[in-house]
Formats: sequence, structure tokens, C-alpha cells
Amino acid sequence: MNRVKTAIVGASGYTGMELLRLLLIHPGVELVAATSRQEAGKSLGSVFPRFQKAPGADLAFIEPNPDAIAATGAQVAFLALPHGVAAEIARALLDRGLRVIDLSADFRLRDAAVYQEFYDHPHPAPEMLTQAVYGLPEIRAAEIAAAKLVAAPGCYPTSILLPLLPLLRENLIDPATIVANSMSGVSGAGKKADLTLLFCECNESARAYGVPKHRHLSEIEQELSLAAGEKVTISFLPHLIPVNSGIVTTTTAKLRSGVSPEAIGAALDKAYSDASFVRLLGRGGCADTKNVTRTNFIDIGWQVDSRTGRVILMSAEDNLGKGAGGQAVQCFNLMFGMDPTGGLQNF
Amino acid sequence: MNRVKTAIVGASGYTGMELLRLLLIHPGVELVAATSRQEAGKSLGSVFPRFQKAPGADLAFIEPNPDAIAATGAQVAFLALPHGVAAEIARALLDRGLRVIDLSADFRLRDAAVYQEFYDHPHPAPEMLTQAVYGLPEIRAAEIAAAKLVAAPGCYPTSILLPLLPLLRENLIDPATIVANSMSGVSGAGKKADLTLLFCECNESARAYGVPKHRHLSEIEQELSLAAGEKVTISFLPHLIPVNSGIVTTTTAKLRSGVSPEAIGAALDKAYSDASFVRLLGRGGCADTKNVTRTNFIDIGWQVDSRTGRVILMSAEDNLGKGAGGQAVQCFNLMFGMDPTGGLQNF
Amino acid sequence: MNRVKTAIVGASGYTGMELLRLLLIHPGVELVAATSRQEAGKSLGSVFPRFQKAPGADLAFIEPNPDAIAATGAQVAFLALPHGVAAEIARALLDRGLRVIDLSADFRLRDAAVYQEFYDHPHPAPEMLTQAVYGLPEIRAAEIAAAKLVAAPGCYPTSILLPLLPLLRENLIDPATIVANSMSGVSGAGKKADLTLLFCECNESARAYGVPKHRHLSEIEQELSLAAGEKVTISFLPHLIPVNSGIVTTTTAKLRSGVSPEAIGAALDKAYSDASFVRLLGRGGCADTKNVTRTNFIDIGWQVDSRTGRVILMSAEDNLGKGAGGQAVQCFNLMFGMDPTGGLQNF
Amino acid sequence: MNRVKTAIVGASGYTGMELLRLLLIHPGVELVAATSRQEAGKSLGSVFPRFQKAPGADLAFIEPNPDAIAATGAQVAFLALPHGVAAEIARALLDRGLRVIDLSADFRLRDAAVYQEFYDHPHPAPEMLTQAVYGLPEIRAAEIAAAKLVAAPGCYPTSILLPLLPLLRENLIDPATIVANSMSGVSGAGKKADLTLLFCECNESARAYGVPKHRHLSEIEQELSLAAGEKVTISFLPHLIPVNSGIVTTTTAKLRSGVSPEAIGAALDKAYSDASFVRLLGRGGCADTKNVTRTNFIDIGWQVDSRTGRVILMSAEDNLGKGAGGQAVQCFNLMFGMDPTGGLQNF
Repeated sequence: MNRVKTAIVGASGYTGMELLRLLLIHPGVELVAATSRQEAGKSLGSVFPRFQKAPGADLAFIEPNPDAIAATGAQVAFLALPHGVAAEIARALLDRGLRVIDLSADFRLRDAAVYQEFYDHPHPAPEMLTQAVYGLPEIRAAEIAAAKLVAAPGCYPTSILLPLLPLLRENLIDPATIVANSMSGVSGAGKKADLTLLFCECNESARAYGVPKHRHLSEIEQELSLAAGEKVTISFLPHLIPVNSGIVTTTTAKLRSGVSPEAIGAALDKAYSDASFVRLLGRGGCADTKNVTRTNFIDIGWQVDSRTGRVILMSAEDNLGKGAGGQAVQCFNLMFGMDPTGGLQNF
Repeated sequence: MNRVKTAIVGASGYTGMELLRLLLIHPGVELVAATSRQEAGKSLGSVFPRFQKAPGADLAFIEPNPDAIAATGAQVAFLALPHGVAAEIARALLDRGLRVIDLSADFRLRDAAVYQEFYDHPHPAPEMLTQAVYGLPEIRAAEIAAAKLVAAPGCYPTSILLPLLPLLRENLIDPATIVANSMSGVSGAGKKADLTLLFCECNESARAYGVPKHRHLSEIEQELSLAAGEKVTISFLPHLIPVNSGIVTTTTAKLRSGVSPEAIGAALDKAYSDASFVRLLGRGGCADTKNVTRTNFIDIGWQVDSRTGRVILMSAEDNLGKGAGGQAVQCFNLMFGMDPTGGLQNF
Repeated sequence: MNRVKTAIVGASGYTGMELLRLLLIHPGVELVAATSRQEAGKSLGSVFPRFQKAPGADLAFIEPNPDAIAATGAQVAFLALPHGVAAEIARALLDRGLRVIDLSADFRLRDAAVYQEFYDHPHPAPEMLTQAVYGLPEIRAAEIAAAKLVAAPGCYPTSILLPLLPLLRENLIDPATIVANSMSGVSGAGKKADLTLLFCECNESARAYGVPKHRHLSEIEQELSLAAGEKVTISFLPHLIPVNSGIVTTTTAKLRSGVSPEAIGAALDKAYSDASFVRLLGRGGCADTKNVTRTNFIDIGWQVDSRTGRVILMSAEDNLGKGAGGQAVQCFNLMFGMDPTGGLQNF
Repeated sequence: MNRVKTAIVGASGYTGMELLRLLLIHPGVELVAATSRQEAGKSLGSVFPRFQKAPGADLAFIEPNPDAIAATGAQVAFLALPHGVAAEIARALLDRGLRVIDLSADFRLRDAAVYQEFYDHPHPAPEMLTQAVYGLPEIRAAEIAAAKLVAAPGCYPTSILLPLLPLLRENLIDPATIVANSMSGVSGAGKKADLTLLFCECNESARAYGVPKHRHLSEIEQELSLAAGEKVTISFLPHLIPVNSGIVTTTTAKLRSGVSPEAIGAALDKAYSDASFVRLLGRGGCADTKNVTRTNFIDIGWQVDSRTGRVILMSAEDNLGKGAGGQAVQCFNLMFGMDPTGGLQNF
């Protein structure tokens, strides 16, 4: 098989490390560049001892220079950069003929005004928003396959959208009643020298944060609104819990009048029975992060509470996997005509 | 000071251990009996190495025999027994003149039919339900002070009730819209040789469980209904997270039309500004379990989301502290005219 | 490639689960049988939600019956059974023409009397001890390749032997001065409903146990003695720490007179520079379990303390990986002429 | 009781927080000053939410100015400052008539040359070394009681010295054969914005570090040499493990010829049977950090290995408790004639 020459831009954080973990051994990938300002010149293996003796771990980090990246022959670049920074390098790489899978928030929103509202600065490249595809493969496989620029969804949004979208599309729930509670592992906050992320500050601790307007809410509501065919506003309640990775989300919403429990199961089955990376646990199934960490799976269970008339959706994913790096690789497989599970068969 | 002769019945589990921890050094307590079938004859210190060299740790466990307990001169007994078992021994001890603080679910509900619905067996002593006081000191101090039989609330209910009750009493929220999400440490499941509670099964794991009808829902709805003056039915979504102890609860509900954020703050202030063990974090305050573990405090923060018209209530407590043993001691202090913070000044 | 028909006997514990994890996606393996008394009839995926949608996860557990296993056409069986139980089924499978990789302690010792001393019961099949090969691939690759019966080493022994053997073979250290300190994750204790293994008993806890004669000491001393050419007796100090998996071992020994630090580095390089799964961190390198979990690597660093004349050897491995399942697969690759890293390229 | 006016200098790190936790509720203490450059002007309760509603939590942090501290009427100051910084302020406070309990390393060593060797800079106040008392209360109670300047021992040294000193004093072991292995919780590394201390870097990780010459080795060897009456040099092997606090140390040494196991037990009993904060677990007792966290206890068990002729000493303490803040308070109680367990009766 011809392997696709691939670059990772911004490979020194947790998401970058997950991309390395997946791409170093992806059978359809030849990793030709990994960038990091602070690690430039060092080999992947010396920066990440976990990757020592991995095939390709002798590759040296380079500076994130678009010409240098293009000169490696890279056909595609994964960007694991902060929002606001990713847009510029994405443009430069697109101009040089690469396809781009951006894991930042820069191209997830269709409306630059919403970006400004949630990210507190003007969008760095509003004219590019129309060409980006929001990269949820279960929802937009064909668009992703054809895209030059894919915006990989955020970790929280993936765990909230996949259970909800089929129910909204089939008008089974009242969108005005959605409350989504999420708990995330600490890697979701990134690899930053920040006192609040120290072991002793996170261990034996649990708390909500970022309410009521966490940044991810913007893309969640965008996608929910598209599915519902009307503007949807929800409550999103993220929490930090002491695990390295993993997100569990429990979402409630009122069933539309007359909707039976069976209709919920049927809608999920219809949406995902053929999906490689969605595992339906059925009625009463409680998704547990420990079954999905280091995989690209999202597990989805549900329950109906006849007392309150609410459906309860329970999903679990790895925030670095299906919530970031794994999903980006899933998009890559679509974009380059690979086996959908290529490089993602880890358990 | 005359110390109150005190017994702990069922002292070998996590709640019993917390009661021992608090009562061994409570200045107003003389611990005269601790019972445990499997540890009878051994000293407290030999069963719990943590308590070696504590004052009173030489006391030997005895069998849970009511006459033997009464013979120690005990004036009060804390019961840390399974539901269904507690009722009988409570009756026997009351008959022998002791006052009883029961930490099981046996006397929390006023309606034996609700008990049967949620606990799947007939109530063992329905005729006693009217004499029991639901022991939330912030709500029923006078009744507790006078009670012979106090039912200490469950851990989840405490974390959900204290933030909600003032808002319901003042009719600030729509009770039909309440969704309470809780995350609990593993000690909440008790000290049982159960594969699902093994370290490797709980560590690096997070999941919902017990939806939609966790047993604690019965007492939650009972107390909410009393405060609201109407029958209240809510969604309660408990989760297990990998911490030893601590519960964080995030609750949402729709504000009544025209209710301002200031009204929320005012209602909480009015209810709790004089409460020894409620700490109000104010608007935007996110309660963190790490600030309350091994204390009797509950921290409460809140936020109003003008986009959805919902209030967000965030509370944190120690499930073994304010959620069990600490709260029971707080009741004890009321019952015996002690300083409200006696034996509870741990940080 | 012709895939080798493979059975796993005793697949419901942590080691069995690790073997499943590796063998379900090993390119040279066709998993034809997995046994478990308590799970017989259920599919792998239903027992282990993590493996749902893995290739082969629809296979149903069967009873551990030798004829039934042989009837599947299995050419090789991995045994993940308790010691004392493994020997009998190993014999039955060997009699039916299968090759056997046993992960229990039953065939690790050459001397049945030592087995009885350390395991407190007579060896169940002493006549088979001579035919078994102690399966440390870095030491006995040729013997393993030819073996019908391989005894995969214990987790602690692997972490202690690999750093020490080259130094003993070259007579660089005084074997009478060896002290090996190990810390193991909780999965090393197995999946048992035992109060001491509960989350709340292990979390925020660290302690030594099993001193001075842990069972693994028997195989450690056997292999050290073979390398030293004299009987070696050491101090082995195992500890339990709150991680799911991973062993870190720090071993000290007096250098022979006149031995230079360079000689230590040279001996390790000579032994392992071509080893696929040994990563040498060099002088001053401190091995960290977080770099080896879920891999088959052992990382080895070292230091010389000129003040005391001692060498300090620091190794890290995954107790379920290089310490159990991974190493067994490494043996399998040798036995069936596979790529040495086949099925083990996980990072 | 007249309470002693007390200051804490440097109260914003983990040791400072532990001192606050203990001193805010110590019956013999009136906390009159707490200093922190970065938190000056804020109340203790606002900086440490855990202490909200504690008695005295309204006190505001001040700058670490000696005159300002003295002006509060403080009779004693606890210093929780970095080494090199503590010496100067200690001198200034002593000059102003305060007694000083220093928790840094500045006054632990008697020889300024050893300080320079291990701390890489000249001692800031060598002329003061003779007046400082190394504050191990079990060893030097009388000297501590009379001291103006107490150097509270390091966390690792406490866990190593207390088990070893009685054996060395009675010449039961060969000091040239001592190997001490320690595992510490992450709080031992301090509250620093350092990537290596992030939750995701420490959780599910264990590793040695700081070999072969950790700074604490200097005071360990000083005190061992004093007890042995000869210069003692040992191997000290510290490790970092994922717990918030707690140190477990396992030390081995060769028994002198003819020394019986009973002699070990007798020496420990003789030394510590009256000690308030040493708990002897006896032969075979394995000390566990979970029994000592948040207390001032050190638990000590031991075993003799007749095969190797070595004694195995197993100790557990809280690095912030008996290893730092608790022990400093224990010294304070001696210095001011308080009940030895005053303010330290926490379980």
C-alpha cells in the first residue's frame, strides 16, 4: 500500500502525543514531519520516552514552518495547536497543497460572530469558514471524504452530539429541555504548567467549572440546531474528575408527547448500527469510560424515566481518542480512502 | 462537662469508621460501646490501625445485642447498619431508654408504601415512622433537638436538598424542571467484597448507575415536596468516580418567570448565613470536593444562565461527613445541647 | 499468512483479559477458543465490554475441557490459571498435541522441592519440570523457539532479572549484596472479591507486603544462581501502590572491586542492544511505569554510587505486559517463527 | 489557658497549609500572623477555601517582614520557606525575641561544608548552626524544649531515622549495609507550576528519582552517624508514587553476628513504648500510609530474614504530618510546655 505522507503540527501536548501514538503505527501513514517549537531538533523518542523503539520514533521535531512542512512532501497535516493560532498555519498549508485536519476550534463554527462571542477575539480567517467541514464521521462521511479542510470536533461536543442528533432529527425530544452533564479527565485541560492542574489539586477532587458558557457550547448548539431544524439552546455542565482521560456524559431531555421508549432505541439503532466506532449498549446500559480509554469508540446507553417523561442518554469516550486524535484519524481514513478502522484497532 | 455515654452499632464499615473517627475525640462523648458481629472481642485499634493510640481505642467490639448495649449505660446509639436491619434494633434500644440516631434508610420516609416501592420489601416497622425526625439540622433543628429517633439523611439527598430547599420554599424555581446530577466517591458504595468495587475496576473509570430510580430518590422527593407544598418529581443521575470520598452535585431548574439572579443569592443567604456547616460560595462559585473531605461542611455555589433561564446549583460535601457521620454528630450535638460545632472542628 | 489457531484457557481475570487484548488483533493469530467456567456460553464482547466490535469478539467462552479445546483445532494454548491448577490441563493439552505457554508458576522452577517450599503444596507434576523452558526471550530465545511447554516468568521476576542477569554473568557485582525493591500496581493481585483490594483500601495507600519470602523469590533466585554460577540468595521487598498496572523495581548491589561504571553500561548494552523490548535509558536514567504501561517494553536505567560502591538498577514494565501477557506473546512469536514484534507494536 | 501567639511564615504551599490546618484549631495557639508575598492582604479563608469558617480564618496574610511579624506580638514563628531563604528571616526573628521552628533544610546540618556539598551553595548563616536543634522529639525532647531555634527534620529522614536509630545505638546492625527505599506522595515535591507534577504526569506513574545523592541524605547520614558513633554512609532510593501524601520506607541492613530477632523488637520497644506518636506494629507488621495520613503518627513494623541475615524495617508516615507540619507542632508542644498531643489528636 502507498502510505500517505503525513505531518503533525504541534505535537508536544497531549493531543499531539495521541496523534503520534496512532499515526506512528498506522499502516497507511508515513509520518514525515512533526513540529514543536520547544522540542525542535530532538527525536520523537527522546521527547516521548513511551515511543522509543517505535517505528519512526527517530524522526526529529522541526519548527512549525509551512515551507519546511511542505518540503517533506506531506500530503496532509494534522494541527494540534491552540485556537487562534491554527487558522493561519492551516491557510498556509492549504495554499501549499496539503489537506488539513485541524483539531483546534478555529474552523468548527460556521458563524464568525459566534466564534467571537465564545472565544473573545475576532475570528482569524472568517473567509475560510465555509470551506471547512465539521468532522463528525458518523454524520458527514461524504463531506469529510471530499474535504480539503476538516475541523475535528471538540471532546465534549462529540460525547453530547452523537447520542442526541438522531433523537433531534426524528423529533423525539423537546430541544428546549436538554441538559447535558459531562465529566472529563484532566488531560482535557492540556499540558500546561498551571497550579490548578497539579496532581495534588486534581486527585481526590471533583468539581464543575466553566458554567454556564463553556466554549464548546457554541459548536454543540450549532450542530444540534442543524439537526433540529431550529435554534437550540441547552445547558452544558462540564466537570473535572481525577482520571487521566475519558469523558462520561449524561444528558436528559423531555420526550415529545407520545414517544415510546422503543422509538429511542430504534432511532439510535438506525443511526449507528453500521457505525464502526459507536457501540450501543441498549436500554439501561451505563457507559463507563474504562471501556473506551485509548480507543476510538463511543459507548452509548440510554434509559427512559416514565415518572418524569425524560430520556437519559449516557455516553462514554476517550477525550483524547474519539474526542480528539482518534476521531481525526477516522476522518483521515475517509479522506484518503482507507479502511475505516485503519490504525484504530486498539483495545 | 458531663460526657454523653454513646454507642455505635455496626461500626465496621466506612460509615461506622467515620463515626468512630469523630466520636473517639468528641469532647462531649464517652464511647461506651461499639458493635460488630465479625469483630466482636477485638479492640477498635486492632481492627482499625488508624485508631491505634487514639483515646478510647482499647475498647473492644461487642455483639449487637440490645441488652448488652443498654448495660453499658449508653444514653444514645448511632446505628450504621443496612436498611431493613436497623429498624428492629432501633426499636429495641428505644424501648431500653436510649435515644437513637439511625444512619440507614429505615426511618427517612414518612410513607411505608414509598419505602416498599423503592426498597423492594415491606417496611419493618411502619408504626415507628411518625416518631422519627428526618435529621437535616439546617431545616429541622428544633425537632431534632427534641427527638428520640433521628433518621440521618442519605449522602446524595443532603447534597441535593440543601441547595434546592430554599429556592422551592420561596417559589423561585419550577419543581417540574429539576435535574440533579451527582458524582460520588467509591466509599459511598460501602465496604463490600464486590468485584465492581475493586481498585482496578473503579480507578480510571467514571459512569452513571442506578438510573432512573436510585433509592435515595424517595427521600429527596419527599423533602422537596414538603418544601414546595406540592408533589415534586425530579431526575436524579448518580455517577461513580474514582475518589475515596466526596460528592459533587450539579442541579439545574427553570427559574420562575421574573425571578432575578439576586433572588437566588438572597434566598440562600437567608437560609444559611447563620448555618455553621454551610459555606456559600456565591454566584459563579464552583464547589470542589477537595475542600470538604473529612469535614462536615457543604459548600454551595450557583450560577444563573440567562440563555436558558435556568439556575445552576453546585454543591460539594463528603459523603461520609456531611453526607453521613458528620451530619449524625451534628444532630447529636443538637439532641444533647452541645456546641453545634463540637467534635466537628476538623479541617 | 497462515494464522496460528490459538486458545486462551482461563480468560476471565486480568491476565486473561490482557491476552485477549493482544491476541484478538495479533496478525498471526486466529483465536479459536477462550475458556472460563463462570462465563461459558457468553461472548467475549459481552463479558468484556471493552472488546465489543473487536474482530473475533463474538467468540463464545467455553468450559476448560481439554478435548473441547483440542477439537477447535488449537495448535497452542495460553494458560492463565492459578498455580496448582495449570499443571494438569497443561499435561492434557500437551498430550493432545498442543504447545503450551503457561503463565502460572507451575513450570517455572526446576526443583519440585523449592516449589513445595514456596507454594506450600507438593508439585502437581514434577516429572514435567525438565521439559519446561523458563520463558525469558532475551535470555533463552532458542530454547523457547523449540519448546513444547514454556513457563512465562512472573511479573516481579522479569523486572528484577533482566537488569541483574548481565551483571552477574560478567561477575560485576557481589550476589550476596543484592536488595531488590519493587512496587506493583493492583492488577498484580488478580481479580478477586477481596476486601483488601477494594478501591478505598488501595487508593491513597502504599505498603510493603509478603516479606521476606514472597513466592516469586523462588524463580528469581533460581535464575540469578544460574547466571552467577553459584547459589544466590537476595532480599526481595514487594510493595503495593495505587496504579492499575506497572511495576517499578530498584535494585542495589555492591560492585566487585575495581569494576567501573562504564563496565555496567557496557554489560547492559552487550546484552540488550539488539533486544526488541528492552530500552536502555543509560546512566542516570530513571525508569517510569507511565512509559511502559500497555506495552511489552521494559525500560532499564542505572546509576553508580561511588560513596557506597553500589550499583543502582532501575527498571519499569507493565506487570500485565512484559510481566505477563506481552511476554507470553513474545514467546509465542518465537515458537511460531513470527516477527518478534508481531502483535506487540502498541504504544 | 494562655495561648501562645504564633506566626507562620510562608503559608501558601503545602507545608504551610498543613501548619494552618493544625494551628488554626490548636487549643494552645493563637495565630497572630501568616505571611505570603503573593497572597498578602487576602484572608486565609479566601486563599484556602477548605479553611472558610474555621476559627481564625479571617486573619489576613501579610508580607514576610520581620518587624511586622514581631509587631503582632508573636512569640514563635514556624518557617515554611525554601532552603537558603529561611536562614535570614530566622535570624531576624530570633533577634526580635521570637523562638523559631524552621521547616526548611537551613539548620538541619551541623557542618556548613556538608550543606554546601548537598545544596550547591554556601550556607547562608553558618555561625547559627551550633545553636539549632535537630527537631526529632523522640530523640531530643529536652534539647528541643529548651531551644530557641529548632530545625524540623525532612520528611524522608524522619521515616528512615526513627526505625534505624535504636538499632544503631545498640549496635545490632552493620551500618555499612543499610539500604533505604522510600516512596513519597506528590505533595512532597511542593506546590510548583511544574509540568512534571501535573496530574496526568504523576497519575498511573511510579519512578525513582534523585539517586544517588538526594539532598535529604545529608541529614540522614549525620543523624545515623551520631547514633552509631562512627561515620555512616547509606544508599537512599526515593520514589514518587501517585498519592497526595504519605511516605512508606522499607530499609534493610545486615544484623550483627548473633543478634536475634527478639533483640530488634526489644530495641524498638525500649525506644518507643512511651512515645506518643510512634506506633509499633511488631514483627511482620507492614506499615501502610493509609493509616497515618493527616496524623502525626509514624507506624513501624519489622521482619528478620534468616536466609539473608537482614532485618527489614517498614515505616509509614504522612510527609506533611510527622514528616513536616505535625512534627513541627510536636516540637512546639515541647518548647512551650504543652500536652505532647495538643493539637495533634486527629484521626
